[in-house]
Amino acid sequence: MNIRLYNARILTLANGFEIERGEVHVKGSLISYVGEEKENRENWDREINCMDNLLMPGFKNAHTHSGMTFLRSFADDMPLLDWLHQQVFPMEAKLNADDIYHLSKLAIMEYLTSGITANFDMYLTPDTIAQASVDCGFRTVMTSGLNDFTQSVELMDEWYRKYNRYHELISFQIGFHAEYTTSRELLEGVADLAGKYQAPVYTHNSESLSEVEGCMERNHMTPTAYLNQFGMFRYGGGGYHCVHMTEEDLQIFQEHGMSVITNPGSNAKLASGTAPIKRILDLGINLAIGTDGPASNNCLDMFREMFLTTGLAKLRENDASVVDANQVLYAATVGGAKAMGLKDCDTLEEGKLADLILIDLNQPNMQPINNITKNIVYSGSKQNIKLTMVNGKVLYEDGEFHIGVEAQEVYDKVRQITESKK
Amino acid sequence: MNIRLYNARILTLANGFEIERGEVHVKGSLISYVGEEKENRENWDREINCMDNLLMPGFKNAHTHSGMTFLRSFADDMPLLDWLHQQVFPMEAKLNADDIYHLSKLAIMEYLTSGITANFDMYLTPDTIAQASVDCGFRTVMTSGLNDFTQSVELMDEWYRKYNRYHELISFQIGFHAEYTTSRELLEGVADLAGKYQAPVYTHNSESLSEVEGCMERNHMTPTAYLNQFGMFRYGGGGYHCVHMTEEDLQIFQEHGMSVITNPGSNAKLASGTAPIKRILDLGINLAIGTDGPASNNCLDMFREMFLTTGLAKLRENDASVVDANQVLYAATVGGAKAMGLKDCDTLEEGKLADLILIDLNQPNMQPINNITKNIVYSGSKQNIKLTMVNGKVLYEDGEFHIGVEAQEVYDKVRQITESKK
Repeated sequence: MNIRLYNARILTLANGFEIERGEVHVKGSLISYVGEEKENRENWDREINCMDNLLMPGFKNAHTHSGMTFLRSFADDMPLLDWLHQQVFPMEAKLNADDIYHLSKLAIMEYLTSGITANFDMYLTPDTIAQASVDCGFRTVMTSGLNDFTQSVELMDEWYRKYNRYHELISFQIGFHAEYTTSRELLEGVADLAGKYQAPVYTHNSESLSEVEGCMERNHMTPTAYLNQFGMFRYGGGGYHCVHMTEEDLQIFQEHGMSVITNPGSNAKLASGTAPIKRILDLGINLAIGTDGPASNNCLDMFREMFLTTGLAKLRENDASVVDANQVLYAATVGGAKAMGLKDCDTLEEGKLADLILIDLNQPNMQPINNITKNIVYSGSKQNIKLTMVNGKVLYEDGEFHIGVEAQEVYDKVRQITESKK
Repeated sequence: MNIRLYNARILTLANGFEIERGEVHVKGSLISYVGEEKENRENWDREINCMDNLLMPGFKNAHTHSGMTFLRSFADDMPLLDWLHQQVFPMEAKLNADDIYHLSKLAIMEYLTSGITANFDMYLTPDTIAQASVDCGFRTVMTSGLNDFTQSVELMDEWYRKYNRYHELISFQIGFHAEYTTSRELLEGVADLAGKYQAPVYTHNSESLSEVEGCMERNHMTPTAYLNQFGMFRYGGGGYHCVHMTEEDLQIFQEHGMSVITNPGSNAKLASGTAPIKRILDLGINLAIGTDGPASNNCLDMFREMFLTTGLAKLRENDASVVDANQVLYAATVGGAKAMGLKDCDTLEEGKLADLILIDLNQPNMQPINNITKNIVYSGSKQNIKLTMVNGKVLYEDGEFHIGVEAQEVYDKVRQITESKK
């Protein structure tokens, strides 16, 4: 499909935060033009009048566990480790690959309502996770949750090769669950694999204080320092959460060009703490934002995460001027794409992939228009997502999904799966 | 209009958090029936099939400054007092009553999108604030922002009498801006007025640490203790914000049956701190939730405030189990109504005012339905507000406003006002 989006305000994020008026052309999966309104001589499959609303790059959900939708609101108001061991792990043990296919589709639908055009998914069955994304037309970067109880380095090696050639919407990054669930032997194997492919490595890192304290007891080092000594991050990578970080930990991230992927909603709900976002940004470390899974958050809403990213940083630093709206918006888009290795999904420019959203400014929460980027970060919500396009296709528009399946069918299937596990 | 809402799940909040299936009848401004589906023999002006979605009492926004919509995203990322003195006060000085009429309407529209059916508004011109609400069909409790620079006790006395007889949608409570802006003479006058009408008193209280420290220097007492010595709270009342409270302060609130009205979004964005919500609830103090004004928050979204109320409490106490979803939902509805003196707008019961909302459960963020009240508090957003009814009238439904004016007309008017002040 060739699509012309005209009469728009455009935030390309290619050069700062200036907003221009003009149009965006999409041919197939690519952006073919971004610029001023021009004489319209082509035959378009579709022309979309943006009505002076804002086109911008889609949000990147840089850490999630999509398949956990079945556990949303299943067990809340519990400490992290109790929640994980008493509720999550026993329920997850009952899941099969087909279940995860449908559960992932529900998450994808929610991503689309929040203007998220790609997710970085750590879950159990890459075959059906990838299939769910491909069937919906959604972009997914997968990573492994390898730990002592599940998967192996050999399997990850196989997945790495398979899913990086699987489909244009799918890629795979090396990863493991966390220091506290993964033996030294496995960690050495992961580091070797990273060396083999000269690839970055991703993991849960310093999410809770007890995790850091446990690592200090076991290894006399913080998780970051401990993992780093294996050469784990020679080719970069990233840490999910990164709440309890020492200055030395952050320097390791800085030296290796790693990304911090913050998950403020989950960290608040599970009382894990508040990440040092100001310091991370001051050090020039790439910041990305993730929702974490729907069992811990419980929603998959980038607007809530953006407000929390700055709000919690302001509270932590006792300073309302830190971590401004533009820094947050950058993290939610370009920072996320960088963390996920999606180098062509970051900005609106000719030749980039057409992963974009249309923000409805004609809603009370966006009026008056004193400052659009501040409006988005401080006042935006899912009601402002008018259209979500991934890889050149409109997957969500005016509350309707175009993902090859009826919404109600997905809800019904997820309900059946959820009921069957209780 | 007589309206039948059928095929619904119903959370009455009259007796705990049980959800029943059935129907709600509305006759004029009142609820005439809540219960099981029954044989339909009446002639209705309208029958609404709720499609198994959830009917519940509307949210009460228990602290806001609606007219400040023109300052949304005008100046952010600044410390509270700089923001107030350098940005807010000079701009507000340029407003006239007619401006505030239109600015308030924009806020009302945003309340409706968030399922808010009443607001507790402290702003400058009660005549046009009340008129905006009446013209839209919205319910507003006004209070005075009396301080050393504006208004007087005599004027408040006049307003109290006038606006408590003005219209069924309007009421007025005694209030003043804050200890740090109001002289001892004025405070004594306010306390006398409260005695004259045996009425509660409302004010900004202990929002920032510097406010409390300033009061300690000036008066050798906390704001709560200082105000209390005038007999200010003999008939109850409430404090907005209440972030920096001593145990003695909370005991004064408890003894006088006062309400804490928490504003977590504003407190985060202005780095004011996190209120002791767990302790407030443990003491049995009535908790209500407000958005604060759109210049400090910047949005008027009860879903965000609900998540923050529990999320920030969990972080503060370092305990994921504190302040559960039902406590938050109660504060956002029944607690708000109690704080605002709206004794007939709190629950869905026969004879109560028909201030209710329909929550769309057929959205990805509400699926699967493991627990509806947890879904609302932890995962809900404005996209889930299918219908907002105030005083028996549908004011918002499926994204459309029914408030006697076109949305675009309000946006245009607010843009003109905003531009004219710059």
